[in-house]
Amino acid sequence: MQDVTQKKNTNGYNGLFIPGPTNIPDRVRQALNVPMEDMRAPDFGDLTLPLFTDLKKILRTNSAEVFIFPSSGTGGWESCIANLFSTGDQVLISCFGQFSMLWADMCIRFGLDVERCEVQWGLGVPHEDYRKILSADKDHKIKGVFACHNETATGVVSDISQIRDILDDLGHPALLCVDGVSSVGSLDFRMDDWGVDVIVSGSQKGFMLPAGLAIVGVGQRALKERMVSNLPRTFLSFDDMLKANATGHFPYTPATHLLHGLRVSLDMLLEEKLDNVITRHNRLASAVRAGVFAWGLEVCAKQPDLYSDTVTAIVVPEGVDSADVLKMAYYRYNLSLGAGLSKLAGKVFRIGHIGNLNEIMVLQALAGSEMAMYDCGISIDLGSGVAAAQELLVQNTTKRVTKAA
Amino acid sequence: MQDVTQKKNTNGYNGLFIPGPTNIPDRVRQALNVPMEDMRAPDFGDLTLPLFTDLKKILRTNSAEVFIFPSSGTGGWESCIANLFSTGDQVLISCFGQFSMLWADMCIRFGLDVERCEVQWGLGVPHEDYRKILSADKDHKIKGVFACHNETATGVVSDISQIRDILDDLGHPALLCVDGVSSVGSLDFRMDDWGVDVIVSGSQKGFMLPAGLAIVGVGQRALKERMVSNLPRTFLSFDDMLKANATGHFPYTPATHLLHGLRVSLDMLLEEKLDNVITRHNRLASAVRAGVFAWGLEVCAKQPDLYSDTVTAIVVPEGVDSADVLKMAYYRYNLSLGAGLSKLAGKVFRIGHIGNLNEIMVLQALAGSEMAMYDCGISIDLGSGVAAAQELLVQNTTKRVTKAA
Amino acid sequence: MQDVTQKKNTNGYNGLFIPGPTNIPDRVRQALNVPMEDMRAPDFGDLTLPLFTDLKKILRTNSAEVFIFPSSGTGGWESCIANLFSTGDQVLISCFGQFSMLWADMCIRFGLDVERCEVQWGLGVPHEDYRKILSADKDHKIKGVFACHNETATGVVSDISQIRDILDDLGHPALLCVDGVSSVGSLDFRMDDWGVDVIVSGSQKGFMLPAGLAIVGVGQRALKERMVSNLPRTFLSFDDMLKANATGHFPYTPATHLLHGLRVSLDMLLEEKLDNVITRHNRLASAVRAGVFAWGLEVCAKQPDLYSDTVTAIVVPEGVDSADVLKMAYYRYNLSLGAGLSKLAGKVFRIGHIGNLNEIMVLQALAGSEMAMYDCGISIDLGSGVAAAQELLVQNTTKRVTKAA
Amino acid sequence: MQDVTQKKNTNGYNGLFIPGPTNIPDRVRQALNVPMEDMRAPDFGDLTLPLFTDLKKILRTNSAEVFIFPSSGTGGWESCIANLFSTGDQVLISCFGQFSMLWADMCIRFGLDVERCEVQWGLGVPHEDYRKILSADKDHKIKGVFACHNETATGVVSDISQIRDILDDLGHPALLCVDGVSSVGSLDFRMDDWGVDVIVSGSQKGFMLPAGLAIVGVGQRALKERMVSNLPRTFLSFDDMLKANATGHFPYTPATHLLHGLRVSLDMLLEEKLDNVITRHNRLASAVRAGVFAWGLEVCAKQPDLYSDTVTAIVVPEGVDSADVLKMAYYRYNLSLGAGLSKLAGKVFRIGHIGNLNEIMVLQALAGSEMAMYDCGISIDLGSGVAAAQELLVQNTTKRVTKAA
Repeated sequence: MQDVTQKKNTNGYNGLFIPGPTNIPDRVRQALNVPMEDMRAPDFGDLTLPLFTDLKKILRTNSAEVFIFPSSGTGGWESCIANLFSTGDQVLISCFGQFSMLWADMCIRFGLDVERCEVQWGLGVPHEDYRKILSADKDHKIKGVFACHNETATGVVSDISQIRDILDDLGHPALLCVDGVSSVGSLDFRMDDWGVDVIVSGSQKGFMLPAGLAIVGVGQRALKERMVSNLPRTFLSFDDMLKANATGHFPYTPATHLLHGLRVSLDMLLEEKLDNVITRHNRLASAVRAGVFAWGLEVCAKQPDLYSDTVTAIVVPEGVDSADVLKMAYYRYNLSLGAGLSKLAGKVFRIGHIGNLNEIMVLQALAGSEMAMYDCGISIDLGSGVAAAQELLVQNTTKRVTKAA
Repeated sequence: MQDVTQKKNTNGYNGLFIPGPTNIPDRVRQALNVPMEDMRAPDFGDLTLPLFTDLKKILRTNSAEVFIFPSSGTGGWESCIANLFSTGDQVLISCFGQFSMLWADMCIRFGLDVERCEVQWGLGVPHEDYRKILSADKDHKIKGVFACHNETATGVVSDISQIRDILDDLGHPALLCVDGVSSVGSLDFRMDDWGVDVIVSGSQKGFMLPAGLAIVGVGQRALKERMVSNLPRTFLSFDDMLKANATGHFPYTPATHLLHGLRVSLDMLLEEKLDNVITRHNRLASAVRAGVFAWGLEVCAKQPDLYSDTVTAIVVPEGVDSADVLKMAYYRYNLSLGAGLSKLAGKVFRIGHIGNLNEIMVLQALAGSEMAMYDCGISIDLGSGVAAAQELLVQNTTKRVTKAA
Repeated sequence: MQDVTQKKNTNGYNGLFIPGPTNIPDRVRQALNVPMEDMRAPDFGDLTLPLFTDLKKILRTNSAEVFIFPSSGTGGWESCIANLFSTGDQVLISCFGQFSMLWADMCIRFGLDVERCEVQWGLGVPHEDYRKILSADKDHKIKGVFACHNETATGVVSDISQIRDILDDLGHPALLCVDGVSSVGSLDFRMDDWGVDVIVSGSQKGFMLPAGLAIVGVGQRALKERMVSNLPRTFLSFDDMLKANATGHFPYTPATHLLHGLRVSLDMLLEEKLDNVITRHNRLASAVRAGVFAWGLEVCAKQPDLYSDTVTAIVVPEGVDSADVLKMAYYRYNLSLGAGLSKLAGKVFRIGHIGNLNEIMVLQALAGSEMAMYDCGISIDLGSGVAAAQELLVQNTTKRVTKAA
Repeated sequence: MQDVTQKKNTNGYNGLFIPGPTNIPDRVRQALNVPMEDMRAPDFGDLTLPLFTDLKKILRTNSAEVFIFPSSGTGGWESCIANLFSTGDQVLISCFGQFSMLWADMCIRFGLDVERCEVQWGLGVPHEDYRKILSADKDHKIKGVFACHNETATGVVSDISQIRDILDDLGHPALLCVDGVSSVGSLDFRMDDWGVDVIVSGSQKGFMLPAGLAIVGVGQRALKERMVSNLPRTFLSFDDMLKANATGHFPYTPATHLLHGLRVSLDMLLEEKLDNVITRHNRLASAVRAGVFAWGLEVCAKQPDLYSDTVTAIVVPEGVDSADVLKMAYYRYNLSLGAGLSKLAGKVFRIGHIGNLNEIMVLQALAGSEMAMYDCGISIDLGSGVAAAQELLVQNTTKRVTKAA
């Protein structure tokens, strides 16, 4: 394989198809182009208070509180742990990818007593294991059940409502804490309907903003736990936020430019309507998968009901290092694809299809991936994935494409 | 055909593949994001004087003067006529597309005595006709020979150096005035080597800027004609510009933000090196043409040596209105293609491949065009054009793809 | 005096107080931060057609046509001449500053027969001379009466309605052509009420945009003259514009980014309401004048009713070169003031107070001017001008401050 | 007092004179206007690695590690505690303003055993108390000595090197942890010379960026403490950062747009040279203080050697609520001043003079403050503060203005 790293193709626009940060819409980009301002101005709440209201619409909750931290999704995860749990609390969590694994590690670091289900990467939340473990927990020692809605590393979406059903069936009071970093605002997520107690998301995925905001929804029942939690927190304190947010202010300097961007991204999501946003993601994701299958390749997700509509992890053939595909795409074609992470390093590359996206962008990702794979010696027919995706996109289908079909 | 105009697809980025305005590089876009400033500041020349120097490098001239008017390419054309010619002056011009036709019309409006060669659209400058007419002009009544280097309406590039050869062969003193609006900075153009007396370009094509600047190069021999020209001008006066430009100033308020953008676009062209820019355009244009031929369609340009590397006009099959393809592309796929103009209205659509461009952008244009054509009932194999283009782009070829080949 | 040109103060924001380009509001700056787009898109008129409607509100006309040329104000002047007059047409014009002088020169260059009233700089349109000349013109040979509403070089505003009264009194049919480059959108201007036939303005003054648009209003009676005018024009043709504008398009590539900026600047002017904009300009201008008089200096305008509310030309004492004040302000204090032009070079400096402006900006201009003057040896009390302006600004006055008062 | 809150003055630019977020230079603003990019790109380190190198120049350290967290200064404080200390560790801290108080509170929340010196607001670090306490601590139970270099709430700068001297005199091994949020990059700060073990800063002050980055310098001796610290952390983990930063990457998605902004802000600070930046801040701060004293008002800082060069807290006369001054400034004059916080609420207003600042900006702040105070019934002579500041600024002084002088 030629050494492409000597000369980066810097012509034209970079094709950004990682699963976040995502492509910023131009309206949002305009909104970010602001001078600084006084975050203690008496009318600052005119900007901020409606943000909280509209974020609830995206989280589909009427009752939860929403927090906006100037941090990353990792900060969002941490806020959930540090505000609602105490040293030694038992929590149930499953690991089936880099990000679900990291959240579990964080629980351990914070001194929680972690019941960790190891799941094959490519599968999702192990509902039956969860049921078994929870039903065995007669004393309700398990305080939290953690789940990753969309595992960004493997492109696997899990059924969250089923976890709620299990908890309800068992009358188990554990808090249902969900990582929705790469699902909220893109995939179907229903905080209230699914009885989610905590949902963590970030600005740089479905919200189509730069990284820098953690967005965390916390239900009223969960919120009470902050009173008894003994873990230390200040930067990520729900309590401090609640007090300051009441008048639209923050306990420390917020990232005001991102709040202006969030205003526009919320406008865009609400104008398109959330159901349409979800349908669009499904449609475009289906096109990507159709392309992958036309190449004769497999996706990492093991079965159609697990296919994520925001990111697809594509398994490269034996003998090929997926890192080479990424480098080729990046240096030769100015195309940014997602790397295989951790266990999947070298084995998959990922196409992010989330956020500000349309048909011709998805086709660009497929066309560029085809050339990069071709250059790396993967045997595919150039154009085959594009054609398969187009076949789907010229239809008005909103159905999932499954491999079998 | 479905009515797509009711609902515009506003998701994702618009795919802009018209032959200008072209896609602004992000570095240029940053440079345009400036506050206003005093165009009479004592150090304003620090910005402007190097622009003139570097523009000469792009025009490949050592001796010509360069003018920057806050206008469009049309203003550039007019500056050539109004400053260098007089009422009743004979000029030779050929018409083979919307833009060559418009320049001829302008000559007529300005009272020139226009010898106009009508050429089939799809062909270029009729060198043999020019030779005949010029050799018959023993008294050298013809003061100017006008030529369109790249006819944007048909995607035809003409050989300019050959016109110079004819003039030199005949010892004919007429000024050679060239429209390079869609060629300069993208196609091979050599003002000094080709003996071009006036070259007109604009900011919104190869210079990758918004519309708003006419860039005009005028050789020293041509420049003297402003002394005898009797046509009125002030806004477009070379004389006023020369005086003010000497210190880096302008006779009236220039578009300072565009000058900052021009600074960066010149940096980018010179960093990539002009020869590489030209090679890149050829490579990407060849890919587009390979795609068109794979669809089984024809381009408007009649023969390979006339194929433009900045724009391709694609002839739609009989019975199809190319305007429908454009509407479908625009409304359904957020893809902007170039319309068929004037005689070609309804008969061609155009793909602009000029400026800030790379492989995956070109493939996006082809993929989107395929879907729009498919939706309009044109019988093409989805993905076929993309595949043909990819075949070429995975090679390191810089040769032209011709249909026969 | 120290040599300040060796080290430019580049800290902080430049204080831009020239009479255009003016300070771009942040909302406008955001709107300018756009990717390029297709100016032939079927829905392009959704952006452009309302611009024409709203521009009429700013010009206060119901019946005139409005043209937007991608040029400067100079191009706007030229469009008036080239479309509506013919070689040898008699026009009446008065010169009392750099800009009124330049328009007269342009008329001469275009072959008009110019009756030119020379007026002392510091005075305005000589209504009595106009009356005399027009009443002597029994045969109505004078086709156009030209007037500069606001002479930017001297800071003099002239009464335009009085010219209309004279024409009406005399039953004289000459077209009333007005330069409103530095008045429209800032000073009281009423196209219909004052019977103005042509009004020329530009983007970089009251419209708070970068330079690059000429905005020209032409009444229906004037418009008919384009049929008989024999002057050549294409770039600035009203006829071509009218045809293309009907559907919201343009005869050549418009400066789309500026059109987006214009959308926002019109929104801002209409939201503030034009009468309030005018009152604000008067209020802030009065503060500047109060400051100047407190310094013990004179303004160039000879009498209070001529004081311009958009720019003030301040006469420096004998023995001081105003160019030194400008250099000191620019290099030492990062403050851009307007130069004395032509006859006034070295004798005045100008403070522009037009467009996007508030109280503390005006005070900044005065405070910086005081230091620059002080450094140049002008005997003023530091802070005296600021104090006088503040006295006025803490009031709610909207009355003019005159020196006598 | 009139009710000004009904109609906000939205004309012109907001005068932003809070002590952060500060005014973003236009070069930085341009740099922030970027599309998103892949933070795992193989060449991402080309951007990030030099940032760490250059940040060390600003911190004036050769040996410390620098961390960039996507958080606020509060997150920076927390990183110091959570990585380097353990539950029950004794720390010494002094409280003399809102921010020094908050850091002490955070220590308590994290379970440290806090020895807290209460100091009158308006004074700074109590060196003698520190000496007494530390010399009494024979067993070196005190693990950390905390100090606020510049208390933003009161405008008090403290001598940090003296604390180091005390520690060295006593041979006390406690870590010297400094809050430099509103000092680094603006005031004289020398990490190595002063033996500072941890320095915490943020993006939105001297770095002239939007809020969103905590910048933390940690010396090698301090860094070892992370091995024994038992406090939980992940988002703010030094360890995770160190591993990822080695190749220029981050343990989670960084705020890439702010990193591009930081690149430019570092360029600007290094181009101006840090010593000049510090001198400029002193010069401009001295002008502000000269203005305040001319008004006949007091600053909060009790003695000249405590005067902060980045922010001045101005004590309003008895009977006046400083919140009214702020509202008047904000609503009537579009001027943002800093509020009195906590104990100082209603008693002071603050003028921030930090970052991207020049003479005419400082004068604007004074002029606007004068009008707002006047409107609130404070007896001052309009223009008096401006004049006093100007007197100083027309000199080339770099000396401090003290009230006595």
